[in-house]
Parts: sequence; C-alpha cells; structure tokens
Amino acid sequence: MQHFDWPVRVYYEDTDSGGVVFYANYLKFMERARTEWLRALGFEQDVLIDEAGVIFAVRSATIDYLRPARFNDALTVRSSITSSGRASVVFEQRVLRAHDDEELVRGKIKIASLDASTFRPKPMPKELMEALSRDA
Amino acid sequence: MQHFDWPVRVYYEDTDSGGVVFYANYLKFMERARTEWLRALGFEQDVLIDEAGVIFAVRSATIDYLRPARFNDALTVRSSITSSGRASVVFEQRVLRAHDDEELVRGKIKIASLDASTFRPKPMPKELMEALSRDA
Amino acid sequence: MQHFDWPVRVYYEDTDSGGVVFYANYLKFMERARTEWLRALGFEQDVLIDEAGVIFAVRSATIDYLRPARFNDALTVRSSITSSGRASVVFEQRVLRAHDDEELVRGKIKIASLDASTFRPKPMPKELMEALSRDA
Amino acid sequence: MQHFDWPVRVYYEDTDSGGVVFYANYLKFMERARTEWLRALGFEQDVLIDEAGVIFAVRSATIDYLRPARFNDALTVRSSITSSGRASVVFEQRVLRAHDDEELVRGKIKIASLDASTFRPKPMPKELMEALSRDA
Repeated sequence: MQHFDWPVRVYYEDTDSGGVVFYANYLKFMERARTEWLRALGFEQDVLIDEAGVIFAVRSATIDYLRPARFNDALTVRSSITSSGRASVVFEQRVLRAHDDEELVRGKIKIASLDASTFRPKPMPKELMEALSRDA
Repeated sequence: MQHFDWPVRVYYEDTDSGGVVFYANYLKFMERARTEWLRALGFEQDVLIDEAGVIFAVRSATIDYLRPARFNDALTVRSSITSSGRASVVFEQRVLRAHDDEELVRGKIKIASLDASTFRPKPMPKELMEALSRDA
Repeated sequence: MQHFDWPVRVYYEDTDSGGVVFYANYLKFMERARTEWLRALGFEQDVLIDEAGVIFAVRSATIDYLRPARFNDALTVRSSITSSGRASVVFEQRVLRAHDDEELVRGKIKIASLDASTFRPKPMPKELMEALSRDA
Repeated sequence: MQHFDWPVRVYYEDTDSGGVVFYANYLKFMERARTEWLRALGFEQDVLIDEAGVIFAVRSATIDYLRPARFNDALTVRSSITSSGRASVVFEQRVLRAHDDEELVRGKIKIASLDASTFRPKPMPKELMEALSRDA
C-alpha cells in the first residue's frame, strides 16, 4: 500500500505539565500530515474549495495512545488509506518516534467530502481519489 | 446513571477558517469536563499527583463528529461513566448545543490511572471510583 | 475606571512541559475576557458581524510575564479601557491569581474595528463605545 | 547582523473563523523559530535543562499585527538578536509571507535564562551567547 511520511517536531506548545504531548495535539499532527499528503499529490485545499467547491470534514476519529511523545522529540506521521467511498475516505495514521520507528499513537480518521457551500456530501474529485489510492 | 454537565463557550481560539470548531478542540472541552467533574466530587488532580501519587493518562479516544459547533455557541459537555476497572475508567462524553440539547459530538475516552513517578498502572483511589460510580 | 473580571481555570491544554502556562495561551485568556465583557454589555460578536458589519482585529499586543500560572490555578482576567479612538480601543488586561490577586501577566491589547467585508477601518458602534467607557 | 529563517506552514489548527491566523498563534511560530535557531547552532533545550541546568522563560513580548496570514500560507519567521545581557536576550522576530517577503507580524521577545531548579536568573551558557551573536 502507498503511504506518506511527514515529519513533526514536538515544541513546547504541544506538551503539557505532565511532561508529554497533550492528547488532543496528535490530531493536529495528523491533520498536518493529511494536508501535506494532498499537497505532495498536487492538491491544495484552498484551491479545492475555490475551484472544485469541495471542503473536507472529519466524521470520526479513533485514537490509541500507546506511548507518550515528549518535548523536542522528532516524530513521523505515517499515513495510508484503508478504505474509501464516493464521498469519504478513511486514513490510518501512525505517529512514530523518528529515530527508531517506535509506534506512539495510532489513529483512524474518517473524512467526508462536502459541497463547500451547502455542506452536503459531494463526491471527492476523481483525480484526488485516484492519486491517493495509487500504489506507491 | 449519574452524569455531570459542564458548560463550554466557543471562542475564536476554538474555531478554524472553515467557520467551525477545529476537530481536535472538542478533546480539550472533554478534558475540561472530566477535570471539573473530579473537582465537583472533591478531587483536585494536582493534589492526587502530590498526595496519592496518581496521574491520569488517556489510553484511547473514539469520537463521532455529528454536527459542527460554531463561534460563540454555548455548549454543554455531558459526561458519564460507562465502565471501570481497577486502574482504568471509560467516560462517555457528549457535546450538546446548550439551547436545544442537539448532540454535536460524541466520544468515549478511556483513562488509565498511573503511578505518578513510574508511569505504571496503579489502582484509582477507591473513594474516587466510588464517587464517580455513585448513582445521582 | 470601569473594569470587568472574568474567571479562567488553567487546564492541561494550557500548560507546557516546563510546568507552567505556555506564554501564547495568556492571549487566549485575554481574548475570552474581552469577548465576555462585550457579551455582559449586551454585544455578541457574531451579531455585530452580521448586523453592524463590524469585525474586530488585534493591531498590537504588549505583554509582560511577571510570574507563572500553573496547572489547576484559578485566575482572574481584569480588563479595562485605557484609550479609544473612532475605530480602535486599547484594553489593559491583567491576569491575576484568583485567591490572592497576585498579578501574573499584564497586557495592553489594541483592537481595531473593521468593516466585515472590506476589512478597512470602520468606526466602532457608538453604543458599544459608550458602554465600554461608562463609569462602573 | 546574523539572522535565522524558519519556514512555517499555516494549517487549519492555526486559523480562526475570521478566516485568518488567530493572534496568539504567531507566538507559537516565533517559539518554534527560536528553538530551531538554537538547534541549528547545536543547542538542544532538553539537553540544556539536563546538563547546563538552564531553562528559558519569556519575560515580555511586543507584537505588531500588520497584515493577516491565511490558511495554507507559507510563511518565514526571520529572527535576529537586538540586545543581550548576562541572563537575558531580546529577539526580533518577523513573520513574512514566503513568496514575496511581505511583512505580516513583527515581534520583540525578551527571554530570560533561569536556573532549571530554582527558577532564579542564571547566566546563559557562554557558548550559546557567542553563537547567537556571531556575525553571519
């Protein structure tokens, strides 16, 4: 399966007084990785809104927190597609410690494609779906 | 079942340029509500760390995003306990629009109780478990 | 001078691994306090955008960090107006520890009033300026 | 004068429902840039805490918001040192739009060097001060 790796550095803003990354912030890292994957495939989300009239919304997220990330850690977000429909796609996203690929957090994020003005489901642009599901 | 309601107001900091609350930020609202429930039962987490040597960590989160919350919305986070073990507890937390109780987001959050120095599982303080699971 | 007090609780989301509130997050607390002051005076910002066509933007911020706030602290944001023009107003905002009024952070925030569609300066609604500058 | 450029991409997490970057979030961008400058010079802040017993704290921030950054913008944070003492240093940090170097936000951030256990002022490591103030 195709996958996409995006590096994330842990800054003070990401941590909490427990000394680890605050649990909500991994969802930020995952969103960045999805955005950068689309960008790497040639799709800019602001252009998708303006030209294709499509905006993405998260429908569900399932996250397992296995081990904590800490201040200054270098992480990798490894993303792949596990399933897709006409107007939705499920990303599997794993947050790894960069130096040893130890898995810290694992998530499944379901994204819906919506009409940018009515917010009703609208099929993903075909070229985007093809690009995402193409073998590496 | 006992439940605990905590009000949350949506500020600019919570929203994104899609005009709605950014998906990670509901996890902040849920954490606030869990903290305030413990406080309402008489348990302060900084005291639990210092005196009982117990710190809480999120093990997993499953979130369904049903409808978006928007800037300036008044929300209610309604929390209850769905199951509990010796060193873990599962919260069900629903984010409702305050004025009509419309459900916007629904989550299950599994919390582990850890030894604050070794970060190994440690039973929840008994009085806390009793207080959380007591009928309303 | 009139002032407005708004309570803020420090949650895990606000802290960093240094054990204190992350320096950017006091600007969130100050924004909440400004919003709640307007609300207490009867002005909702989403209504101001829709009906008066006015949106607020921060022009400058000067912040002094005197003492750190920590996890679980109860804070007060005390806001007043130090000067105002036709299309701008300067808030002085002090973040105090609630139990002893010890000053932790002090800021001056200059807000501009903009036309919500052109983003050019537009006079503040007169009733709002009068309400903000009225003696307590 | 020496300066250090660090790229920042604007993600959904950084924006608000006004369609622009939320004003507190530029302080995150600036903190990332200071951290990366130190790293580029060979200084890791977690090592500084553990081995030199030194932690940094922000003493003051003065920020001018000139033009808004928007979702998906590519930015550059350009940092330099304007003055320094034994236990403090003032950074000037400008947030530029990457493609045309248009200045969006300008800040002066005063950082104090503290003893990591007592939180009292402690001189910056000499090698760090020399590295920061060296001509480019």
